[in-house]
Amino acid sequence: MILDPLKFHQVTIEDTFWKPRQAVNRAVTIPIQYEHCKTTGRIDGIDPDHKPGDPGAHHIFWDSDVAKWIETASYSLQTEPDPQLEALLDEVIAKFAKLQRPDGYVNSWYTNVEPEKRWSNLRDCHELYCAGHLMEAAVAHFYATGKQSLLQIMCRYADYIDTVFGPEEGKRRGYPGHEEIELALVKLYDCTGNERYAKLARFFIDERGQQPHYFDLEARERGEDPSAFPFGGHDYNQSHVPVRQQTRVVGHAVRAMYLYCGMADIAKKTGDAELIQACEALWQNVCQKQMYVTGGIGPSRSNEGFTFDYDMPEETAYCETCAAIGLVFWNHRLLQLTGERRFADVMERALYNGALSGVSLSGDRFFYVNPLASLGDHHRQPWFGCACCPGNISRLIASVGEYAYSSAESNIWVHLYVQGSARFDKDTLGATLRQVTNYPWDGAIRLTLEMEKSQRFSVHLRIPSWCRQYTVAVNGLPLNDDGSVSQGYLVLERQWQHGDLIELSLDMPVERVSAHPQIRMANGKVALQRGPLVYCLEEVDNPVTPLSRIRLPRRSELRANHEPDLLGGVTTITGEAELITEDGWESALYSVNPQNTDRIQIKAVPYSVWDNRAAGHMLVWLRE
Amino acid sequence: MILDPLKFHQVTIEDTFWKPRQAVNRAVTIPIQYEHCKTTGRIDGIDPDHKPGDPGAHHIFWDSDVAKWIETASYSLQTEPDPQLEALLDEVIAKFAKLQRPDGYVNSWYTNVEPEKRWSNLRDCHELYCAGHLMEAAVAHFYATGKQSLLQIMCRYADYIDTVFGPEEGKRRGYPGHEEIELALVKLYDCTGNERYAKLARFFIDERGQQPHYFDLEARERGEDPSAFPFGGHDYNQSHVPVRQQTRVVGHAVRAMYLYCGMADIAKKTGDAELIQACEALWQNVCQKQMYVTGGIGPSRSNEGFTFDYDMPEETAYCETCAAIGLVFWNHRLLQLTGERRFADVMERALYNGALSGVSLSGDRFFYVNPLASLGDHHRQPWFGCACCPGNISRLIASVGEYAYSSAESNIWVHLYVQGSARFDKDTLGATLRQVTNYPWDGAIRLTLEMEKSQRFSVHLRIPSWCRQYTVAVNGLPLNDDGSVSQGYLVLERQWQHGDLIELSLDMPVERVSAHPQIRMANGKVALQRGPLVYCLEEVDNPVTPLSRIRLPRRSELRANHEPDLLGGVTTITGEAELITEDGWESALYSVNPQNTDRIQIKAVPYSVWDNRAAGHMLVWLRE
Repeated sequence: MILDPLKFHQVTIEDTFWKPRQAVNRAVTIPIQYEHCKTTGRIDGIDPDHKPGDPGAHHIFWDSDVAKWIETASYSLQTEPDPQLEALLDEVIAKFAKLQRPDGYVNSWYTNVEPEKRWSNLRDCHELYCAGHLMEAAVAHFYATGKQSLLQIMCRYADYIDTVFGPEEGKRRGYPGHEEIELALVKLYDCTGNERYAKLARFFIDERGQQPHYFDLEARERGEDPSAFPFGGHDYNQSHVPVRQQTRVVGHAVRAMYLYCGMADIAKKTGDAELIQACEALWQNVCQKQMYVTGGIGPSRSNEGFTFDYDMPEETAYCETCAAIGLVFWNHRLLQLTGERRFADVMERALYNGALSGVSLSGDRFFYVNPLASLGDHHRQPWFGCACCPGNISRLIASVGEYAYSSAESNIWVHLYVQGSARFDKDTLGATLRQVTNYPWDGAIRLTLEMEKSQRFSVHLRIPSWCRQYTVAVNGLPLNDDGSVSQGYLVLERQWQHGDLIELSLDMPVERVSAHPQIRMANGKVALQRGPLVYCLEEVDNPVTPLSRIRLPRRSELRANHEPDLLGGVTTITGEAELITEDGWESALYSVNPQNTDRIQIKAVPYSVWDNRAAGHMLVWLRE
Repeated sequence: MILDPLKFHQVTIEDTFWKPRQAVNRAVTIPIQYEHCKTTGRIDGIDPDHKPGDPGAHHIFWDSDVAKWIETASYSLQTEPDPQLEALLDEVIAKFAKLQRPDGYVNSWYTNVEPEKRWSNLRDCHELYCAGHLMEAAVAHFYATGKQSLLQIMCRYADYIDTVFGPEEGKRRGYPGHEEIELALVKLYDCTGNERYAKLARFFIDERGQQPHYFDLEARERGEDPSAFPFGGHDYNQSHVPVRQQTRVVGHAVRAMYLYCGMADIAKKTGDAELIQACEALWQNVCQKQMYVTGGIGPSRSNEGFTFDYDMPEETAYCETCAAIGLVFWNHRLLQLTGERRFADVMERALYNGALSGVSLSGDRFFYVNPLASLGDHHRQPWFGCACCPGNISRLIASVGEYAYSSAESNIWVHLYVQGSARFDKDTLGATLRQVTNYPWDGAIRLTLEMEKSQRFSVHLRIPSWCRQYTVAVNGLPLNDDGSVSQGYLVLERQWQHGDLIELSLDMPVERVSAHPQIRMANGKVALQRGPLVYCLEEVDNPVTPLSRIRLPRRSELRANHEPDLLGGVTTITGEAELITEDGWESALYSVNPQNTDRIQIKAVPYSVWDNRAAGHMLVWLRE
């Protein structure tokens, strides 16, 4: 069953969880991100009259930061008109228009700094990556404003790229070192209907990892030894073998996710069984062997990526914000490709935990790295030299509605529960679905259908895998679970009337989550979870460091309490635990006497909002 | 109370623990280490006619590898004459005689490769470090053989160094980037009585970390930016502040230990209260906050050294073999300075565990790094490009008798229990103490005094801090514990007769050792220890990986069994434990169901002998 996601502009969000995030994103994050781009020279650097030595240093992938800002601002404009922001967008887009070369090329570094080196180092220099982000920005800007200014620039650029790369005689058989353009070309195709873009995306995907290896060839052309690649083998950028032969996730996590998104996109468009099979194998490896309970992925700092199965260090977990976001992107695509809940489950896990943790509640501080434990030395930063994460989390928040709903053959899918509404277009259904819920704090969800005429179709409601029990009623009449759950979705098919009310109630107790026995860092430990939210202990609530001194007995009762004044309103978890005391230790390091314990009360908060108060220790996995 | 250690040549070892190690050291390690030195060019490179480009590459501190081989071979010669080895020593020493420049200088790199750069980079280039190791070798060679060939070379070199470095006008106020020469100069002083060497050692110690900073000055002289030091600040080599102001151990662990040895040596010679105080503060920091239960130190690979208090990662523990050996050296010196058991306890812990693990039972494989847990990817290697550890562990084994006894004012101290004998010289006591014991496998120790005439003196027997109960009898008469334990030593003072027998019995049950609550990696865990030996689980005995799936309940009975055919004869520990099973997990990574457990039998072996059978997982700290 192939689904089509609703676009961000078809969904409104009116809840207490995401709406405040979007408001802060609009009021704080978008302005400061522009400001950072401006003060660092990222904006001025677009101007082709701007030369090295002028104020503001250039950077090979600064275009992508500006692109993400355009994309975010566009999403935001759509939900909240802002003439000033729209004018600013026009101004920045005009710079890209000026930057565009007569042949269609658009890249500030290779126009202003190293014009002679265009296309000479696809492996390291993010040239096609920047193109991809600008394409995504162009599509978002078009949908949000109806303006074609950036879209036309990027179509021209894509047309030009298509003349440079491809399997045909005389074209380069290259592909990006940092994947991104593949998924972006599919977006451009979806938006314009131009098959050329989908075909080019497919070329980039199919060519990846073929022999002779393009990155080796181009390294030799540069006069470099291909084996001197500082990141080791071609697995770093997933070009070690052709993508259809890949079964294990390797290398840089963000690159891997973006590649897999492109593979899923092409698989959806073409039904290509080999690509679907490769996605499935890779999904099983990532999501069943290499994913943190927060949805974070990529444990290692040295390659910003993957190591080996079940390797999940806590304090040193890298878990780049962009990687969790990439996991959201990819699972969203696989969900459309299959309609299977497991993809929505992973999408929700990453979205509500390891991705959202990337930005502070204040909207002006960001995590690049999202460890599962901290000794108090890890804090969000205003910006980064390599600033991929801030723009990525802000575009995700601005467009989060896009992840909640799908349609297929006039049927409705609800993946995420978010108060607000979804508008299903006239050419399919012509209906609006309204959600009233306090999710994720509460599992009660009321869905109302609004439509001009009665219609027969099915509503598919996701029963999250974390939910052990639920009830459902239509127009006040409880439905027994009559086996109408398909692929993890409760299927309600009937002749729906305007005003019909579906009441879904998902049990949402505090759960102790245990990990696969092979995850050695979690042996004998539990993580607390309630609904989709993974919790952690923070020192500010539990002033006993290291927090690993705390043991949570299995019999200990855990209570959920909503605290409206805490962290913008969160449900906390409290309970009794044991603390290893320091009594009698004094100067000894080791002792034949057992450790003594005291009873203490602990309080856990959602992982996504940690480090929004006093800096301090943090811990997800608790000894049981 | 200042003690004087017996020298290696005054002690014989006749036990089943160390004697086989010494035999393998002699039969295997010494020959292969010479062979490695030979085949890599380390031996030929000493010849001043040997030039770059000749077979065998040079290395800035290869002289130290050859020096350690000379030192080890000398110790070995003393216990087991070997004319062939003695002749080989003469041959190698003759090369150093040829290498020595007319001014007395001895260094193969700065003679054969970069003669123009002599003394230009003390910070990085190990020039004085090599000198120190050659001095130690010269002293050992002299004591073992009575020959002055190398001793004279090194005295001439030391005399020359003393003309180059010092506080006097016209001399350089430099000191080594890698400490070693300080302790070596004191050995040279002890051996020759030449005060000049002790004075120079003291200069190197006192000058360290003074302003203006010598390493900054010499970097600028080389035309380098001092702040471009690849290892960061001056704390890397303990020159961040003058040594008397140092209270926390920092930087490279081996350098730190060697420096502190020199400080203790000078403190012992001069009674310098500031140096003693600095040693005490540093000891408290190292041994009460930064030492693994194995006596390993220096958790971090990046600086081969220290991080922060209580930081003891297990799998990634660096714990260089040389650092544990340095800890033995330093604590041996502090023990002589004070007579306090705590220093002997640390010395014993490091010696029997984290240092001895550095060499295989076969004598031809070495650990550079000694982690406290392994996933099966850590194995001893035949040799290393930077080969400091093999020679260091082999010289320690060859001279281990030196660490067992001391005398002071005609009194006897027994620090380590090792079957064999100790000869106390006529000028002090004129007695031989014989030990019969199966230590460390058994706590029963019989000590017999042999002497020509009856004398009144005290015998001080260490009651190790791991021992909770003991009994003692003299000539069959049990002594009640009458408060005669002083500084951790049982003091038996009387008119001793020839043939007097002391029977000491140290209770040696299996102990569960717990760690200070601030060691977060060990919260809720125990290490198994019996006598001085720390134990670990190996996959070969416990084929259930990861081993962290095992939990050792507190109530579980643990049994010690001597297995004469295992690993050269070791006492193992067995007991019942719980194993987290993989039942029901299949593809899930996380579950709301608790982990299931099975009962299993576990077997632990001494940490020092792990990785002598099938390669596999290893774990020291067990969940309780």
